[in-house]
Amino acid sequence: MSQPLDIAVVGATGSVGETLVQILEELEFPVATLHLLASMESAGSSVMFAGKKVRVREVDSFDFAQVKLAFFAAGAAVSRSFAQKAREAGCSVIDLSGGLDDALALVPEANGEVVDSLALPALLASPSSAAVALAVALAPLKGLLDIERVQVMACLAVSSQGREAVNELARQTAELLNARPLEPRFFDRQVAFNLLAQVGATDEQGHAALERRLVSELRVLLGLPELKISVSCVQVPVFFGDSFSVAVQSRQSVDLQSVNQALDAAASVERVENDDYPTPVGDAVGQDVVYVGRVRHGVDEDQQLNLWLTTDNVRKGAALNAVQLAQLLIKKMA
Amino acid sequence: MSQPLDIAVVGATGSVGETLVQILEELEFPVATLHLLASMESAGSSVMFAGKKVRVREVDSFDFAQVKLAFFAAGAAVSRSFAQKAREAGCSVIDLSGGLDDALALVPEANGEVVDSLALPALLASPSSAAVALAVALAPLKGLLDIERVQVMACLAVSSQGREAVNELARQTAELLNARPLEPRFFDRQVAFNLLAQVGATDEQGHAALERRLVSELRVLLGLPELKISVSCVQVPVFFGDSFSVAVQSRQSVDLQSVNQALDAAASVERVENDDYPTPVGDAVGQDVVYVGRVRHGVDEDQQLNLWLTTDNVRKGAALNAVQLAQLLIKKMA
Ligand SMILES: NC(=O)c1ccc[n+]([C@@H]2O[C@H](COP(=O)([O-])OP(=O)(O)OC[C@H]3O[C@@H](n4cnc5c(N)ncnc54)[C@H](OP(=O)(O)O)[C@@H]3O)[C@@H](O)[C@H]2O)c1
Ligand SMILES: NC(=O)c1ccc[n+]([C@@H]2O[C@H](COP(=O)([O-])OP(=O)(O)OC[C@H]3O[C@@H](n4cnc5c(N)ncnc54)[C@H](OP(=O)(O)O)[C@@H]3O)[C@@H](O)[C@H]2O)c1
Repeated sequence: MSQPLDIAVVGATGSVGETLVQILEELEFPVATLHLLASMESAGSSVMFAGKKVRVREVDSFDFAQVKLAFFAAGAAVSRSFAQKAREAGCSVIDLSGGLDDALALVPEANGEVVDSLALPALLASPSSAAVALAVALAPLKGLLDIERVQVMACLAVSSQGREAVNELARQTAELLNARPLEPRFFDRQVAFNLLAQVGATDEQGHAALERRLVSELRVLLGLPELKISVSCVQVPVFFGDSFSVAVQSRQSVDLQSVNQALDAAASVERVENDDYPTPVGDAVGQDVVYVGRVRHGVDEDQQLNLWLTTDNVRKGAALNAVQLAQLLIKKMA
Repeated sequence: MSQPLDIAVVGATGSVGETLVQILEELEFPVATLHLLASMESAGSSVMFAGKKVRVREVDSFDFAQVKLAFFAAGAAVSRSFAQKAREAGCSVIDLSGGLDDALALVPEANGEVVDSLALPALLASPSSAAVALAVALAPLKGLLDIERVQVMACLAVSSQGREAVNELARQTAELLNARPLEPRFFDRQVAFNLLAQVGATDEQGHAALERRLVSELRVLLGLPELKISVSCVQVPVFFGDSFSVAVQSRQSVDLQSVNQALDAAASVERVENDDYPTPVGDAVGQDVVYVGRVRHGVDEDQQLNLWLTTDNVRKGAALNAVQLAQLLIKKMA
């Protein structure tokens, strides 16, 4: 058992932060004092941890010298304002916002070994949920396939945009079912019973920041810096659970039996046989694994591998991965 | 103006059949007598056409010698039982069910010219909605790109499975919002706020019949019998409007400007610039075109063209395409 650690969670009142606190408790992470931080808005409220109420405080006035480890789950701007200060005060940082360019993207099941070469205090990034899901499912196949290209359609749950987006889908759905006029707020249009072809603004080339981020994270996580990856992110009217339709183009014929064996042997992967398929609501939500189903060749093309993935974006894709990174870090701290 | 024709619509009480009757009226199709047919269940009910109530009758007792043209929109089994008889009675058949292997798949915007070589009475297939949407959007690009492979993720609205599926999504959603226990009926699990990775049963290779059908239809419609096409069909909690994330792999660098010009010039295509994007609910539903948006290269890959399509599956994808086929046929009959 490691020495208990003083820890801060920035964004503790958000979807990810709240789940993160829960997981620290579930996994009996060795916490000495837990500091819960958020904006002015929810400072003063409290959150349960290990049977006690912990008061939420404002991040602005927090002294990071009090902690050895801080999770940042409060958006890119907050990470950019405070993460550097925290490290200068001797605190290792696990960032979930994607806002820190120099943070090392890490998914234990894919590139966990890079933790060995880290100096403390460390700066780690828990990548986008989509990158976590794809890395967990594809890393076990890397040695097996001569991958030419990976093609991904990511169907993102509204919770990938935080609490407000979750409330908005519920509100819009209720308005429509009650035949009341729809007034979009968080999203700029109807998301209920609809698909939004784009998540966030696009750049001049037509790519969303999240799409570019996913490509570069996945290259790092898989250790394949030249890999061709094509991604389309779509916003779907699902509350929790991201899903992915994936086509892996290989230079050689794909042996499905070895693929299935590799997936069955992989950590954090749950494979579903082809007489069934996993769904976000029915399978992924609340679980610690990436579900993989519909494992098959392309139609008339045995150099292609098709997969369907689904995972809990807030839990496995974010909070749990961050806590797994912390578990790797505390081993180094011991 | 062509000579008015005696016409039958089989499945007139379904989503597609009802829309078909509407479109015949909207487009002032030259109808002499319109015979509306369905099963025993709705025989006796009536449907409005051109200001008059038309009584629905049972298909089993209908004599197809009374008509020169019949639309079949009542499922594959009904087409298999009656289409051959209809033709033997001298009636041209436009089948929407996908159940007739010897029917020629036709989308006027893609392979309309094949109608010239048809003998009467003809047997035409209006292909799956997905094939119609993809053919309309890809046919104008065929001459422009040296296409190596087309990769499609099809997000199908529940209406693609008929009226009952539409009712089921509404019912499930209401139950969930009212915190009542969910009892799936038409679908075998929760479809509201969920994604189903599969539409219909899969074969031994893991492909759904609809996925195979889409591949073979698209090869015929584009006149590219060897084209590599990979398709995943997913059931999304959207009432009307199918959407498609498409990646076209070309052997040469793709010139986006000529792609945009070709799409702008194409019949039945409405292109949306990259500062916006089309959605099923906001754009496609009730319209006669295939919306195309998010026209872009792959990330770091200018030999790839990415597109997002959305179209009204019942209208443009089925009923309207069938009526367009009828318009080609009446020219031959004249
Ligand atoms: N949701 C996901 O699937 C997911 C996955 C991976 C990564 N992430 C990342 O995780 C972070 C949180 O996402 P979320 O989904 O949990 O969002 P959320 O539900 O909207 O929660 C946002 C959290 O950030 C806090 N916050 C916002 N502005 C702040 C400020 N100026 N100063 C201090 N705290 C502030 C909020 O505190 P108040 O209560 O005071 O407003 C709240 O605790 C984001 O960076 C997101 O990109 C999310
Ligand atoms: N929905 C789409 O997006 C779409 C797109 C392309 C093609 N299609 C095809 O179009 C056809 C109709 O689809 P839909 O969506 O309109 O389905 P639907 O809403 O379920 O309607 C089915 C229609 O078929 C009739 N029918 C069913 N069984 C029959 C029988 N044994 N004898 C006579 N009539 C029978 C029904 O009549 P009753 O009222 O008497 O039951 C009803 O009129 C299907 O073959 C489907 O594959 C659908």
